[in-house]
Amino acid sequence: MKFYDCSTAPSPRRARIFIAEKGIDIPTIEVDLRSGEQMKPEFAAINPYHTVPVLELDDGTRLHSTQGVWRYLEDTHPEPPLMGRDAREKALVADREWRMEMEGFTAVGETLRNSAKGMAGRAMTGKHGYEQIPELAERGRARLPRFFETLDRILGESEYVAGDFYSVADITAFVTVEFARWVKIGLTDQQTNAKRWYDAVKGRPSSSL
Amino acid sequence: MKFYDCSTAPSPRRARIFIAEKGIDIPTIEVDLRSGEQMKPEFAAINPYHTVPVLELDDGTRLHSTQGVWRYLEDTHPEPPLMGRDAREKALVADREWRMEMEGFTAVGETLRNSAKGMAGRAMTGKHGYEQIPELAERGRARLPRFFETLDRILGESEYVAGDFYSVADITAFVTVEFARWVKIGLTDQQTNAKRWYDAVKGRPSSSL
Repeated sequence: MKFYDCSTAPSPRRARIFIAEKGIDIPTIEVDLRSGEQMKPEFAAINPYHTVPVLELDDGTRLHSTQGVWRYLEDTHPEPPLMGRDAREKALVADREWRMEMEGFTAVGETLRNSAKGMAGRAMTGKHGYEQIPELAERGRARLPRFFETLDRILGESEYVAGDFYSVADITAFVTVEFARWVKIGLTDQQTNAKRWYDAVKGRPSSSL
Repeated sequence: MKFYDCSTAPSPRRARIFIAEKGIDIPTIEVDLRSGEQMKPEFAAINPYHTVPVLELDDGTRLHSTQGVWRYLEDTHPEPPLMGRDAREKALVADREWRMEMEGFTAVGETLRNSAKGMAGRAMTGKHGYEQIPELAERGRARLPRFFETLDRILGESEYVAGDFYSVADITAFVTVEFARWVKIGLTDQQTNAKRWYDAVKGRPSSSL
């Protein structure tokens, strides 16, 4: 296998943390997103969507999303389980991870990409770019504190996002909390459930990656 | 189990088709989205996100997303498999299904919700609503023909979206093609790979739901 990464970017970080939690040793190729390496023809041949992470399997199959990378590695390296242990847990992980991505991670991405000067004309990943929509950045800024309320509510009901075990739902939520600092939005002091959880997850060795 | 549905809405349609393909008989409760039933306190107690689908398990656990519903039913009712048969297939299904949702299904939703008069002040699901952003509807209109190009390219390489077998990646892509009619965007006559696939999927009994 080969893993295409960018060590400073939040999107591949979700895959990177997962690989570290599994303890898998995969040769890693760094793609320099800041210099635009992902837009070059050489990388387009590896990923037509111009993004990382990418996982290349030994038969040449390439997975172009965190979802694909996680699924493959969970099935081929089941220990420790990061996507639930039985049908109910697996369903709760899928359900909550999707929620964390849709309401949290994408809201940060929309806020940043539609407001950062350096991302003018590149408000979406991929070859078409798209112009920034300032109202979309504003909407993201309105959504994020509400997402953190949701996160705090969930973590008032269970130790981790999908139950009493660490999972990919925690990975996406944790990366979202740290990514949100890029747009200067964070958990409030009142969100004590989420703070307790954040401190616990932050202490895992994989969180330093 | 109990399944909360809305028979005219595209989001729960993805779960509805899946349930039909599996041949599972689940008591179904219709939620009238057009009259705003999803915003009432009775439904908020069932789903704080105010959306369908919802699957309620026999122990009371509720899954509030298509992803959660699919995962639970795939694991408890494995035949016929709709999320891949081995690690590589399962990864490709996860990868492609995510792509179909992010680049297709959400683009239709953004276009519709940010332009339809009846959705003013409700440009996102959930209790906060959000005002429409006309530029976001325009961006969706620009993205969708490019999504259909991607779909046609993928279907030039394999019979179905994730390989030689029907899967949830096809369900999301198929529902997206039909949902896009609501904003009057469709496959072009030149997209012969996607047309061939659409006709084949359209012929399945589950596609009439």
